[in-house]
Amino acid sequence: MKKFIDRLAAVSSKNESLVCIGLDPDPERMPVSDVFDFNRAIIDATRDLVCAYKPNLAFYESRGIQGLESLRATVDYIRKVAPDVMVVGDAKRGDIDSTNVHHARALFDFWGFDAVTVNGFAGGEALEPFLEYEDRAVFVWCRSSNPSARELQDVAVATCDGEKMPYYDWMSRVVGGWNRRGNVGLVVGATYPEELKAVRSNCPGMPILVPGVGAQTGELDSSVRFGLDADRPNMLISSSRGILYASSDKSDFASAARSATEDLRASINRVLATEGRGWC
Amino acid sequence: MKKFIDRLAAVSSKNESLVCIGLDPDPERMPVSDVFDFNRAIIDATRDLVCAYKPNLAFYESRGIQGLESLRATVDYIRKVAPDVMVVGDAKRGDIDSTNVHHARALFDFWGFDAVTVNGFAGGEALEPFLEYEDRAVFVWCRSSNPSARELQDVAVATCDGEKMPYYDWMSRVVGGWNRRGNVGLVVGATYPEELKAVRSNCPGMPILVPGVGAQTGELDSSVRFGLDADRPNMLISSSRGILYASSDKSDFASAARSATEDLRASINRVLATEGRGWC
Repeated sequence: MKKFIDRLAAVSSKNESLVCIGLDPDPERMPVSDVFDFNRAIIDATRDLVCAYKPNLAFYESRGIQGLESLRATVDYIRKVAPDVMVVGDAKRGDIDSTNVHHARALFDFWGFDAVTVNGFAGGEALEPFLEYEDRAVFVWCRSSNPSARELQDVAVATCDGEKMPYYDWMSRVVGGWNRRGNVGLVVGATYPEELKAVRSNCPGMPILVPGVGAQTGELDSSVRFGLDADRPNMLISSSRGILYASSDKSDFASAARSATEDLRASINRVLATEGRGWC
Repeated sequence: MKKFIDRLAAVSSKNESLVCIGLDPDPERMPVSDVFDFNRAIIDATRDLVCAYKPNLAFYESRGIQGLESLRATVDYIRKVAPDVMVVGDAKRGDIDSTNVHHARALFDFWGFDAVTVNGFAGGEALEPFLEYEDRAVFVWCRSSNPSARELQDVAVATCDGEKMPYYDWMSRVVGGWNRRGNVGLVVGATYPEELKAVRSNCPGMPILVPGVGAQTGELDSSVRFGLDADRPNMLISSSRGILYASSDKSDFASAARSATEDLRASINRVLATEGRGWC
């Protein structure tokens, strides 16, 4: 199978889209009660407009084993109706290597995700069990999009050269060194576009997953501009709540999700055009 | 329900034990093929010798939904035969707060764990959904026990006061500030006892989970000495492979696990006695 970044580029180009929809079914906000019915309606309404779907595993795990059966049905459904769309497991998994062997089996073999988000705290050698899946990818959680992100991610580190920089910036340079097989990317929230700029400059050629657009009010235009890679975009712009819950009405939530996805795609594509990076 | 640290102290005292067994069923090493049968035999052989069991979720998730059914049966079985023994979900979960709501529901409501390991990268506010469960606890992953741990955990940070210290050391001070409800602990590997000493001095009154004893050849004596809290031990010493796979023979793996657990408990208790901290 082709590498993840090539498959991502192909579907992005085909659907002229950097939009990734976070499939995070929230029982308090869903207009229909069944998770799979909800996801299927969202997928049917948007599958020609996106490059990826990103189910966040926690939203399924909170429903116990039944929730995981809904996730199984959801992933199977995407494979059936949108086989070239990437499926990114938002799992933030990560541990020492002997445990990561099992995480990688669960996420890549059992769930069959094209890529997953991981926590790289145990270092690059510990991620090897994931990286051995050369046709898949990991997105290392580097900069989050929430208010308290700065607490552990922004502390100044003093490098061996006597330079000082925020932890996330330094971390993205380290993670760049883990990309020997071309299957490592980064997660950088859209709420801090300047941070995205630093990470992109540290990590050319690596895909960046950008959550925080929509409900988390990320700054879309500058995020797109700062996140673009030199050759291909190499970027996924992810929105969850802003699309899934665009309408809380059972009768039109799917069409409202389609409209919200079209709007996001168009806003991104306007920035791409301004940058001379249109799709044709 | 009483606080986790009180329940931990009660069962540690009753079983005169700081031993936590990591229930990590590895298909390549298990002498019986069924996960629940294996765990049940280990639990039956050791439940009077431990303060906690610690299933690592990845080892179940790698077997798909069937693996999670084995975990369900395992947790239920511990509750039935050893109701006062703590069950710690080794999950290393963690994300922004709106996702952590779902992680906390999954781990505390669905699985019913007494405590879980978490990743605190998104900051203290993001952990609030876990911390609202006041009778449970989180162990924030602070220092891991693997060779590449140093890569991201040991970089020198420069604090506002102009002090310099390794990231894990600084992080443990920050995490100490999250313990307003008395339900936050830390994970610090046994392979680096000096690091454990620093963390204990930063975090008095907080429980420390110490993996890496046994297969990872942690330095047991100094780990116990350095990890002890002022009043109660407030520590769990965790071993997985060294106990579960003490024998690879179907006929005696359970009794070998019991012997290995007795040995570990005795080694720890010798250190406690030397420190004048015996059980009676």
